[in-house]
Amino acid sequence: GGGMWAAGAQRRAALALAAAGLALALALAAWRRRRPVREVLFFPSRPSCIEALLAEAAGPGAAARPCPCPLPRGDCSLSRLLRRLLSARRSLELCLFAFSSPQLGRAVQLLHRRGVRVRVVTDAQYMGLQGSQIGLLRHAGIQVRHDQESGYMHHKFAIVDRRMLITGSLNWTTQAIQNNRENVLVVEDAEYVKPFLDEFERIWEEYNPINYRFF
Amino acid sequence: GGGMWAAGAQRRAALALAAAGLALALALAAWRRRRPVREVLFFPSRPSCIEALLAEAAGPGAAARPCPCPLPRGDCSLSRLLRRLLSARRSLELCLFAFSSPQLGRAVQLLHRRGVRVRVVTDAQYMGLQGSQIGLLRHAGIQVRHDQESGYMHHKFAIVDRRMLITGSLNWTTQAIQNNRENVLVVEDAEYVKPFLDEFERIWEEYNPINYRFF
Repeated sequence: GGGMWAAGAQRRAALALAAAGLALALALAAWRRRRPVREVLFFPSRPSCIEALLAEAAGPGAAARPCPCPLPRGDCSLSRLLRRLLSARRSLELCLFAFSSPQLGRAVQLLHRRGVRVRVVTDAQYMGLQGSQIGLLRHAGIQVRHDQESGYMHHKFAIVDRRMLITGSLNWTTQAIQNNRENVLVVEDAEYVKPFLDEFERIWEEYNPINYRFF
Repeated sequence: GGGMWAAGAQRRAALALAAAGLALALALAAWRRRRPVREVLFFPSRPSCIEALLAEAAGPGAAARPCPCPLPRGDCSLSRLLRRLLSARRSLELCLFAFSSPQLGRAVQLLHRRGVRVRVVTDAQYMGLQGSQIGLLRHAGIQVRHDQESGYMHHKFAIVDRRMLITGSLNWTTQAIQNNRENVLVVEDAEYVKPFLDEFERIWEEYNPINYRFF
């Protein structure tokens, strides 16, 4: 009678508690998983001094001498973009139509010296223009490949540690950073990062120098 | 003794069941909420005939005559981009450095005729070049505003019904669509859409003709 009923109720209560516990644990796990970075940067960026940022990224050995330049130190779109790039620990893929910003060039060279595997794909027509950073990057030992097509390699994206995509309208030029209306998205969702990684690898293989034709 | 224990167990079971039910309901609600669109399109797009797509979007009155052109009809990056644009029901904001693709121009005019509120912001330098669609859009009665700055209005984004962002490296030109390496992201996450909407409204106000200066 009562005892058996109580035993059944006990079992049901235990089951229900287990179900509630499981549901709660699943909800907590989803909640706790680090939120992916989602950021939008607009340009033009106001001018700012990035020396402290680069010195900090160069490591504890490179204590920053205070920079004597008169530019403000605060947060801006360029400093935010730099911070995202300088967070790279293992790899950096760059797929850039135009790359002539000395500030971004220094950041990429710094990452290369720090042991980050840097690979660059760029547009052949733009690469040779005065002020391009491509020659300096190659000189520093960074791998660069370029197209041999009539169309432009017009992408402007970077992938940090195979998990963070940085993409938008911004060419990596001082003109674009300081004067143009531009946007940059920072994205960690794999749904976006994966296709861009695949696109990079596809282009990287296609632009392999063994495929170059000399007319 | 037994009776009271059974009543306590019953209460505990009911509570646990209620908790489990609530947790389950919350999980289901989150699951059911329509997943936001997340799409990546790469270009160049292979050529394809878009007549059927435009006829379909023009409404049931406009039965499609089969197009006699020899282009394939299948799915491609351009047709996917067009489908997203043609899904607009209420509003379309365009913020485009260059707009000369006749196909995209026809799609925008179709939306305007369908009663969608279309607003265009573009770059003054590019606007006047031969082949630009801007004059045709204005002629059709679509509102267009442009910059008066030395820097470029270099954005290339569209916002559909204030909830879908379409952005990337792609200028809306036939050259870019057919020959360049380009990317376009389709995004429904409010975290990305909202800042772009704000940027559009900011630029729209700033480029108000009452602010134009004539030197």
